[in-house]
Amino acid sequence: MAEITSEIGSLIDRALAEDLGTGDPTTDSLISPTATGEAHIAAKAQGVLAGIDVALAVMKRVDKSLDTSVLLRDGTTLKPGDVVASVSGPVASILKAERTALNFLMRLSGIATETNRYVQAVDGQDARIADTRKTTPGLRSLEKYAVKVGGGQNHRQNLGDGVLIKDNHVQALRDRGLTLRGIIEQARRNVPHTLKVEVEVEDLDEVKEALDGGAEILLLDNMRPEEMAEAVALSRGRAITEASGGINLETVRSVAATGVDLISVGALTHSARALDMSLDLVSAIVANNIE
Amino acid sequence: MAEITSEIGSLIDRALAEDLGTGDPTTDSLISPTATGEAHIAAKAQGVLAGIDVALAVMKRVDKSLDTSVLLRDGTTLKPGDVVASVSGPVASILKAERTALNFLMRLSGIATETNRYVQAVDGQDARIADTRKTTPGLRSLEKYAVKVGGGQNHRQNLGDGVLIKDNHVQALRDRGLTLRGIIEQARRNVPHTLKVEVEVEDLDEVKEALDGGAEILLLDNMRPEEMAEAVALSRGRAITEASGGINLETVRSVAATGVDLISVGALTHSARALDMSLDLVSAIVANNIE
Amino acid sequence: MAEITSEIGSLIDRALAEDLGTGDPTTDSLISPTATGEAHIAAKAQGVLAGIDVALAVMKRVDKSLDTSVLLRDGTTLKPGDVVASVSGPVASILKAERTALNFLMRLSGIATETNRYVQAVDGQDARIADTRKTTPGLRSLEKYAVKVGGGQNHRQNLGDGVLIKDNHVQALRDRGLTLRGIIEQARRNVPHTLKVEVEVEDLDEVKEALDGGAEILLLDNMRPEEMAEAVALSRGRAITEASGGINLETVRSVAATGVDLISVGALTHSARALDMSLDLVSAIVANNIE
Amino acid sequence: MAEITSEIGSLIDRALAEDLGTGDPTTDSLISPTATGEAHIAAKAQGVLAGIDVALAVMKRVDKSLDTSVLLRDGTTLKPGDVVASVSGPVASILKAERTALNFLMRLSGIATETNRYVQAVDGQDARIADTRKTTPGLRSLEKYAVKVGGGQNHRQNLGDGVLIKDNHVQALRDRGLTLRGIIEQARRNVPHTLKVEVEVEDLDEVKEALDGGAEILLLDNMRPEEMAEAVALSRGRAITEASGGINLETVRSVAATGVDLISVGALTHSARALDMSLDLVSAIVANNIE
Amino acid sequence: MAEITSEIGSLIDRALAEDLGTGDPTTDSLISPTATGEAHIAAKAQGVLAGIDVALAVMKRVDKSLDTSVLLRDGTTLKPGDVVASVSGPVASILKAERTALNFLMRLSGIATETNRYVQAVDGQDARIADTRKTTPGLRSLEKYAVKVGGGQNHRQNLGDGVLIKDNHVQALRDRGLTLRGIIEQARRNVPHTLKVEVEVEDLDEVKEALDGGAEILLLDNMRPEEMAEAVALSRGRAITEASGGINLETVRSVAATGVDLISVGALTHSARALDMSLDLVSAIVANNIE
Amino acid sequence: MAEITSEIGSLIDRALAEDLGTGDPTTDSLISPTATGEAHIAAKAQGVLAGIDVALAVMKRVDKSLDTSVLLRDGTTLKPGDVVASVSGPVASILKAERTALNFLMRLSGIATETNRYVQAVDGQDARIADTRKTTPGLRSLEKYAVKVGGGQNHRQNLGDGVLIKDNHVQALRDRGLTLRGIIEQARRNVPHTLKVEVEVEDLDEVKEALDGGAEILLLDNMRPEEMAEAVALSRGRAITEASGGINLETVRSVAATGVDLISVGALTHSARALDMSLDLVSAIVANNIE
Repeated sequence: MAEITSEIGSLIDRALAEDLGTGDPTTDSLISPTATGEAHIAAKAQGVLAGIDVALAVMKRVDKSLDTSVLLRDGTTLKPGDVVASVSGPVASILKAERTALNFLMRLSGIATETNRYVQAVDGQDARIADTRKTTPGLRSLEKYAVKVGGGQNHRQNLGDGVLIKDNHVQALRDRGLTLRGIIEQARRNVPHTLKVEVEVEDLDEVKEALDGGAEILLLDNMRPEEMAEAVALSRGRAITEASGGINLETVRSVAATGVDLISVGALTHSARALDMSLDLVSAIVANNIE
Repeated sequence: MAEITSEIGSLIDRALAEDLGTGDPTTDSLISPTATGEAHIAAKAQGVLAGIDVALAVMKRVDKSLDTSVLLRDGTTLKPGDVVASVSGPVASILKAERTALNFLMRLSGIATETNRYVQAVDGQDARIADTRKTTPGLRSLEKYAVKVGGGQNHRQNLGDGVLIKDNHVQALRDRGLTLRGIIEQARRNVPHTLKVEVEVEDLDEVKEALDGGAEILLLDNMRPEEMAEAVALSRGRAITEASGGINLETVRSVAATGVDLISVGALTHSARALDMSLDLVSAIVANNIE
Repeated sequence: MAEITSEIGSLIDRALAEDLGTGDPTTDSLISPTATGEAHIAAKAQGVLAGIDVALAVMKRVDKSLDTSVLLRDGTTLKPGDVVASVSGPVASILKAERTALNFLMRLSGIATETNRYVQAVDGQDARIADTRKTTPGLRSLEKYAVKVGGGQNHRQNLGDGVLIKDNHVQALRDRGLTLRGIIEQARRNVPHTLKVEVEVEDLDEVKEALDGGAEILLLDNMRPEEMAEAVALSRGRAITEASGGINLETVRSVAATGVDLISVGALTHSARALDMSLDLVSAIVANNIE
Repeated sequence: MAEITSEIGSLIDRALAEDLGTGDPTTDSLISPTATGEAHIAAKAQGVLAGIDVALAVMKRVDKSLDTSVLLRDGTTLKPGDVVASVSGPVASILKAERTALNFLMRLSGIATETNRYVQAVDGQDARIADTRKTTPGLRSLEKYAVKVGGGQNHRQNLGDGVLIKDNHVQALRDRGLTLRGIIEQARRNVPHTLKVEVEVEDLDEVKEALDGGAEILLLDNMRPEEMAEAVALSRGRAITEASGGINLETVRSVAATGVDLISVGALTHSARALDMSLDLVSAIVANNIE
Repeated sequence: MAEITSEIGSLIDRALAEDLGTGDPTTDSLISPTATGEAHIAAKAQGVLAGIDVALAVMKRVDKSLDTSVLLRDGTTLKPGDVVASVSGPVASILKAERTALNFLMRLSGIATETNRYVQAVDGQDARIADTRKTTPGLRSLEKYAVKVGGGQNHRQNLGDGVLIKDNHVQALRDRGLTLRGIIEQARRNVPHTLKVEVEVEDLDEVKEALDGGAEILLLDNMRPEEMAEAVALSRGRAITEASGGINLETVRSVAATGVDLISVGALTHSARALDMSLDLVSAIVANNIE
Repeated sequence: MAEITSEIGSLIDRALAEDLGTGDPTTDSLISPTATGEAHIAAKAQGVLAGIDVALAVMKRVDKSLDTSVLLRDGTTLKPGDVVASVSGPVASILKAERTALNFLMRLSGIATETNRYVQAVDGQDARIADTRKTTPGLRSLEKYAVKVGGGQNHRQNLGDGVLIKDNHVQALRDRGLTLRGIIEQARRNVPHTLKVEVEVEDLDEVKEALDGGAEILLLDNMRPEEMAEAVALSRGRAITEASGGINLETVRSVAATGVDLISVGALTHSARALDMSLDLVSAIVANNIE
């Protein structure tokens, strides 16, 4: 269940301001503020639910008097028609919150669904599916939450909670004549002792050099499966291995077969399709109304 | 060109806080603050560029002393390898900004690219491709900008700048015995005179009733092509027509052939795949360095 | 009733910070935090009440433990002495919130009162009284709410929810040799289809040209009554007409007599006098106190 | 000259967000971003200018590339037609900023103008005209600045920078049997030593008691002129005197004649009429344009 | 008791964001969200308690479902082991809030404790111990609250609520040939009438000149005791006296002996040691748990 | 050099709002806005400079037209009288920024100075001095920066970038019958692979159990030196060791002698005394002035 931290509360407020900032003349012209009713949020496609607490928090933020109840929890596998939550209270408030609530829910469920496809694809293998920092600006913590709901594992939340020496770092130090090993040793001297040092490597020579330098995690970038299997063998007992680079649903199983510990996939967060969901009014009682 | 309003500036700040809020120990442990260099931002896939000014604003926000230059403008059709911008200055700053800058750029270019596919698909026809309010929370104005870059047309920015009577509104008023026509008339009495009234209709009877009620735009929801063509014929000279509901790249051309004025597609913003882009350091001069 | 959106909540917070940010030494030096009492908010002049929910939200924001009750609702015509709300709980909290609560209430009631004077002045005529974008920075949505409470109609909330081609737009395009008609046609090609196109016109020639260009609303700026009546006649069935420019309580009835649909008056929001209101403590129980 | 502090910068941003948050389709559909021109801000009525730096800061905030120049400084007495500032650069940016800039300028100049009327009314007398805390929520510092520009004196900025024992404080302590004198002595014991203690008094008995209690300023509330003159005589050398309560332009001179040091007038800020100003495009060069 | 204003609420949110912004993997990996328990907050050193309401507000902000109860109120003299508050509910929430809650509590209690040492040191004398504006950026109101809890008196909250003419002001006006007296008279003409004028003086000549100029408070800066006693004698009945400059626990009693009204000490807020406090889990019930 | 990120910019803005939010009547009444001058920031005590860039950023934030130059860089050992920076431009702006600039500078330099005392105390030994999360709410990143300037090493920035299993975690799991080893293994299964697992241990049995569980860092809490030396010996080649708990300047050298890798000291940030600094105007030119 997603915690609605004050930061997520702010994100919801901004999303509502985007959609509702200048009012909802359609609803205001038609629906009396005293009309009450009940609505269902339901799946229109198959997938994994994520973000229902966020969607309902949107509802409550528009109108504290709305009653919301979660019928299916995050992580549930949905089929079309499944009702995941119910909301009752002022109809006008429900309609004003509808789009923003669904925008969160559809996106997060889309990510959980896509993640789960990868997780299913490596079922029975040891490799875990991990996300990246390729997330939507402003939504990182929610998107990483959705990855976990889908069965994935979170990689770094941000630059501060892990060390990852990449291509560009090495490139920046190239003309100083530093070896990869020297670079790793320099990093280990300077970074907080609580962080592991991960290094991006592209071939077996770099694998060996990184291990000798004391790398604690190897990011195996765009390697062929056989090469990757060899890198895994070299690293056993010395470093965690993570495969990365252009891996998709077709190739992920063969990558896992190399024995890597983790497979990170940017597309989980940057290219997942939204999961189609809808909000449907199931009853309404109009005490008095607008003429 | 995307304007970097104070609101977008805040979004950039939040995105940077997410990624860089607690520092970048990797870069700080390796790269001297005085090392300078140049990096290129380049396409790794084919598509339409959108958001390069936002990406470069991210760079400048991390470090005002960075020099940025746009080499290809938003709207350019890219092929893999095309260099779209160059950044020079402190290498450490470039690396800290890299991911956040690319996250904006890849998402917005992905939306422009997807939009453009739909626009190409109806090439030679009159229908325009429009977006919806199904956008990512917090990114609406940027995503709608990307739709325009891709050749699409913007629908409502928010609930406040248009009236759209949908299913749920009608459902809410059902037990008061109001006809669709009565509902439309009520809306027209109450909404600001500057807004047009759009009505969602599902069959030809509703089309007629909506036109009689004075609807100025009809949202033809999930209609079969022949029915849609008839709805278009009935509406000519009386209302703008907009097709909506489950339209995809395979079906969009046949929808356009019905003569509708607009085709709105939620997937432009909620399900576009990111366009792959990278930042590559092309030179670095390290005056002094960290040991 | 004004909705206390998160945006209005923030405005209240800022207003309280302005007044109370560094504490209230007067109250703190005299009144024990445990002293409780009841206060009434009452009218000191005749007018239309608007903003009582905002004023009470200020009270609750200073101290959640305060009990508030609305005795007269927004829209009520007040005479001096009418008690509109009652607040009970810690006296110190009531006194700290007093000024900020009244500042909102007096301003909004002043706008509703002024609007209502115009609405009364055109009583029995068809024209509706509308506001403009000439509102106080930061208070637009509340001020437009007060206009509605006073019986007025809201014009555009912001630049985004309507198209209004004014003098300066035409002036900017003059040396390109564009006719007014050409300008309107260009706008209609480019703006979202959900928005109506309104055009400012100053004489009958412009009226004709604007109608021919497809203007959907005409802003009749500073026209003499006879000319305005003619413009209204020309526009019948083709465009909505709106009178504007230096209209006051003395002239508004003769403007309405021309048959215009709307009369917009900037002074409703930019020059309304505050309606005098007061908060009076009606009882206090001091359990223990400060020496 | 008004300082554009970060707080005022935020207020400007919020005001722009209100007006421009969802874009300006009118301008965007007509004016090319590359079209440049010059506009003048001019008075349309007689009054005292205040806020021109704020208005120009609005311009710069919309578009840093705009060139602005102040032609007449705050405090200048304006007659209709006086050009107070000039702005040049992208025409589209000028038009987008216009309304927000004028909303600040018209309100602040209105306050300076109203204040100046009171200052003129007591010309030759010793009394100074002071403002109150009856300001528009969110605009206090700017409105108090405008009062100074108009020749007035600022009273407390907020509850924290002065002690003012009012009616309601006394009422709250009544049933504890405290005398006014006892209340004042209690306050003097408890408040910071840097603050003066001001007391609201309604008749001569209260004047004497307050002076005996050590009040440093007396707020003479709604007293008749003769009584006020006597209160002033009693206070000479012992306390500053301030007249308050329902004073208007007709009565202010006779109030000043009583010899009071200050006359505070809530209407300066809560009921001043805006001073009419306009922005007029004086030239435009359209390099390329929108079709 | 510290009021949790919206400003302090924001400060708490920022402090939590600093510590908890990217989650708490330790707790999340070990403690089930449904495990409940009780924790005590206890003193580990001797001192004066301040900020317990702030600490508990941190708890509630992390998780509204936590039950908190204050066992000892701010101002209590603590000995090691004293339990000051109890918190019960989800253990995970308690552990996430722990550090931030203690950081507030230890700092504020440290300030109250240090202040109280000075207050005790001048016990039986008339002088009051006052704080300064030398506070931690962002924590001023809380730190000044802690000074009051420790028995101290608050000096100015900010530059706006008092006038204090210091060395640098005099220095800035020196080459205009202004005397100290002339400077004071200028200030008195220009500042709001609600504020007292305080002047920093360094010797007896300046004392006399300041008194002649009408200074209402004298800041006796770094004077020797005998000189200070003479300054106090000269000021009697004319101005309040405040000693300042390098006063410490060893010297404060002799300073008080000079008869000054106040002694201001920057170290109360800028150099107080934190008071050691801890949070200890006293019971936990784990219904279900993480594997 | 401290980077002025947008987050630190916001902190500066809030600090200025605290001090300057309602203006500076002293300066405004005396110093003309056009008077210019130069001021020096100088040390008044011996210590290590930290935060000069922050202090100067405060200056620039108050007035962009101020010229600032850093004369001594962060990390310099200062003696009384050393001038560390110079500021020139409008005198009024310098005086308004003075206190806030010094509050940052004195606190950060105090932390660097205190840290450096510990670093000096273990000179010639291998142990590094580390900070904790016991920082001032809102200032964590700046305070951790100051620790680095003083020669210390940063521990976790926040809960998210390291795993540290403490007493309370173990206590919470006690009645489930989990061994310390079981707890560590559970954590290792669940936390991101980029983070090391640190465990608080109190005696040699716990040391062994933690090592067997796979702890990568041991926090040796309040151990006697001999016990600590034995723990270090057991851990060699298996885990990093960190001493913690009540270590002060007198004891730190003997702790270091045990061979621990790190010594963490909360007092570096929670109890450092401010380093005394001053701002002195060295010249002023008053073109015109206030009367």
